[in-house]
Amino acid sequence: MQNTFLVIIEILGTLAFAISGIRLASAKRFDWFGAYVVGLITAIGGGTLRDVLLDLPPFWMLNWSYMAVTGVALLLVIVFGRYLIRMQNTFFIFDTIGLALFVVVGIEKTLAEHYPFWVAIIMGTITGAAGGVMRDILINEVPLIFRRDIYAMACAVGGLVYWIGWLCGWQVYILEILTAATVIGIRLAAVQYHWGLPVLKGEMDVDGGPKS
Amino acid sequence: MQNTFLVIIEILGTLAFAISGIRLASAKRFDWFGAYVVGLITAIGGGTLRDVLLDLPPFWMLNWSYMAVTGVALLLVIVFGRYLIRMQNTFFIFDTIGLALFVVVGIEKTLAEHYPFWVAIIMGTITGAAGGVMRDILINEVPLIFRRDIYAMACAVGGLVYWIGWLCGWQVYILEILTAATVIGIRLAAVQYHWGLPVLKGEMDVDGGPKS
Amino acid sequence: MQNTFLVIIEILGTLAFAISGIRLASAKRFDWFGAYVVGLITAIGGGTLRDVLLDLPPFWMLNWSYMAVTGVALLLVIVFGRYLIRMQNTFFIFDTIGLALFVVVGIEKTLAEHYPFWVAIIMGTITGAAGGVMRDILINEVPLIFRRDIYAMACAVGGLVYWIGWLCGWQVYILEILTAATVIGIRLAAVQYHWGLPVLKGEMDVDGGPKS
Repeated sequence: MQNTFLVIIEILGTLAFAISGIRLASAKRFDWFGAYVVGLITAIGGGTLRDVLLDLPPFWMLNWSYMAVTGVALLLVIVFGRYLIRMQNTFFIFDTIGLALFVVVGIEKTLAEHYPFWVAIIMGTITGAAGGVMRDILINEVPLIFRRDIYAMACAVGGLVYWIGWLCGWQVYILEILTAATVIGIRLAAVQYHWGLPVLKGEMDVDGGPKS
Repeated sequence: MQNTFLVIIEILGTLAFAISGIRLASAKRFDWFGAYVVGLITAIGGGTLRDVLLDLPPFWMLNWSYMAVTGVALLLVIVFGRYLIRMQNTFFIFDTIGLALFVVVGIEKTLAEHYPFWVAIIMGTITGAAGGVMRDILINEVPLIFRRDIYAMACAVGGLVYWIGWLCGWQVYILEILTAATVIGIRLAAVQYHWGLPVLKGEMDVDGGPKS
Repeated sequence: MQNTFLVIIEILGTLAFAISGIRLASAKRFDWFGAYVVGLITAIGGGTLRDVLLDLPPFWMLNWSYMAVTGVALLLVIVFGRYLIRMQNTFFIFDTIGLALFVVVGIEKTLAEHYPFWVAIIMGTITGAAGGVMRDILINEVPLIFRRDIYAMACAVGGLVYWIGWLCGWQVYILEILTAATVIGIRLAAVQYHWGLPVLKGEMDVDGGPKS
C-alpha cells in the first residue's frame, strides 16, 4: 500500500522531469531521439551522479521503468504538444512532488552507505537538482537553477530538516514527511512570492584575471 | 589473425573519432593542447562513461595506445590540415566502421557484467555516441547528434539486432557481424538519402514553465 | 610541521580556485547559491573526476573542509567584491601554488593505485585543470585553458619531471619539490612572457564533414 504510493509518486516525478527536458529540447528543434535523451538525462541524471559518487550501480540500470516512463513523456509531448502548455500547473505539482521524493531517496541512500549527514544533504540536493543542470548543459544554456528562483536551495533546506529531526530522535517516516513537506513548501512559496537569492554583482574586470 | 584485424579497426576508428574532434576544435581556434584534449575525449569519452557506469576501470587507462593514436591524429591535422578535407569520405568510412566496432564492444562488455540486454543496448549506444556529445559540449555547441541525421539511432538499432539474434540462438560471431553491418548500413543510408528523425515542434511559450 | 604546511597550501589553493569560479559566476549574474556551486566545482571538480576514474571515494566526501573553504570564498567575494580585483596577483600566486600541489597529489594518488606513470601524469593534469574546464562548461563558455596560455601543459610537464626524477632513483620529497617547482615556474613564465601553444588553423569547410 505505502509502497504503491511511493512508486506512483516516483513515476509521476520522473514523468514531470522528463517532460521538462523534452519541452526545452523541442524549443531547440531537437529530433525525437535527441529530445528523448535530454528528457531521460533530466529525469535520471541527478540520481546517476549520486550513484557514481557513492560507487553504487546507477539505479536506472536495475529497472527499465525509467526508460519506459521517458518514452511515455516523449509520446505525450509529440501527441499533445500545445495542450501541455495549459497543463503547466499540473506538471509543476508533479515536478515538485517528484523533487521532494528524489531528495528523500538521495539522503537515505547516502546514509545507508554510512556517510555523514552533510554528505547526505549534498547527495539529496544532487539527486533533485543535478539532472536539470545536465539538461541545460546539453541544450547549451546557462543552467537556470543558478540564476532563477529557489530550487536547489529547497533541496538543501529539506536535507537540513531531515538532519535536525534525526538529531531530535524522531522516527524515519516522520523525517521523510517533514523533509518532503519542506521541499514542497519552499518550492511553492518561492514560485508564488518570487523568492530569489541575492545575485552576485558582476565586476567589470572579471575576464582580466590571470587564472580565468 | 582475427585479433589483428580488430586491433586495426579499433585504431582506425579511434583515429577517425579523434580527427573529427581535433578538426572541430581547430574551427574554434583551440591551441594544440586543447585540440588534443577534445580529440581524445571524442575518441574515448563514450567508452569511459560506459566503464564508469559499469564500475569497470576505464579502458584507456590500461593501454597507452589511445593516447598515441590521438597524438598521431593531431600530427596529421597539423601537417596535412587542408588536404584532409579532400579525404572527408575516407574518414567517414573509418568513423563508421569504428562506430560499429565500438557498439559491439559496448554491448559485450555490458553483457559480461551480467546486465540485461536493454542495458547493453544503451551502453553500446553510449560507447558509440557519447564521445561526440562530450566533444560538442567542450566546444560549446549544441550536440549535433540530437539534431542531425541518424547516428545514435543506428547504434541502438544495431544493439536491437544483437538482441534478436541472441534470442534466435545464433552464434556470437554472427551476432557481431550482423550488428556491425546494421550500424554501418543505417549510417551510410542515413547520410546517402538524408534520412532524419522527425523534429519536435517548438512551443512558443516553452521558457515560461515553472520548472525550466 | 610539514603536514601543517601542506594543509595550509591546500586551503589556500582551494580558496583561490573557488574564488576564480565565484568571480566568473558573478560576471554571469548567478545568485549566491549558483556562485557557490560553480566555486565548489572549480575547486573540487578535477579531484572528483580523478577519484571516479580511479574508483576511489571522492576526496571531498571524507572531509567537510572543502565545503567550508568554498563558503569562505563566497563570503569574501560578497563582502570585498571590488577590492579583490586589486588582489589579483595575490590570488594568482595562491592559485599557482595550489595547482602545483594538486598535480603532486593527483600523481601520487594514482601511483598508489598501481597505475603506470603515464596514467599518473594524466591524473595529475586532470586534478589541476579539469575543475576549470567544468567551471567554464557551467557558465556556458568555451573552456579557456584550451585557448589561452599554458596551464594544463604546466601540469603535464610537472608530471614528466616527476617521472624522470623517479627513473633517476631520487627520493620522493625531492620529486615532489621538483614537480611543484616546475609547475609553478612554467605557469609564472607563461603569464609573464605570454607563452602560448600554437593555435590550430581553422578550416573553412569544417562544418561540412559527415561526422561532425
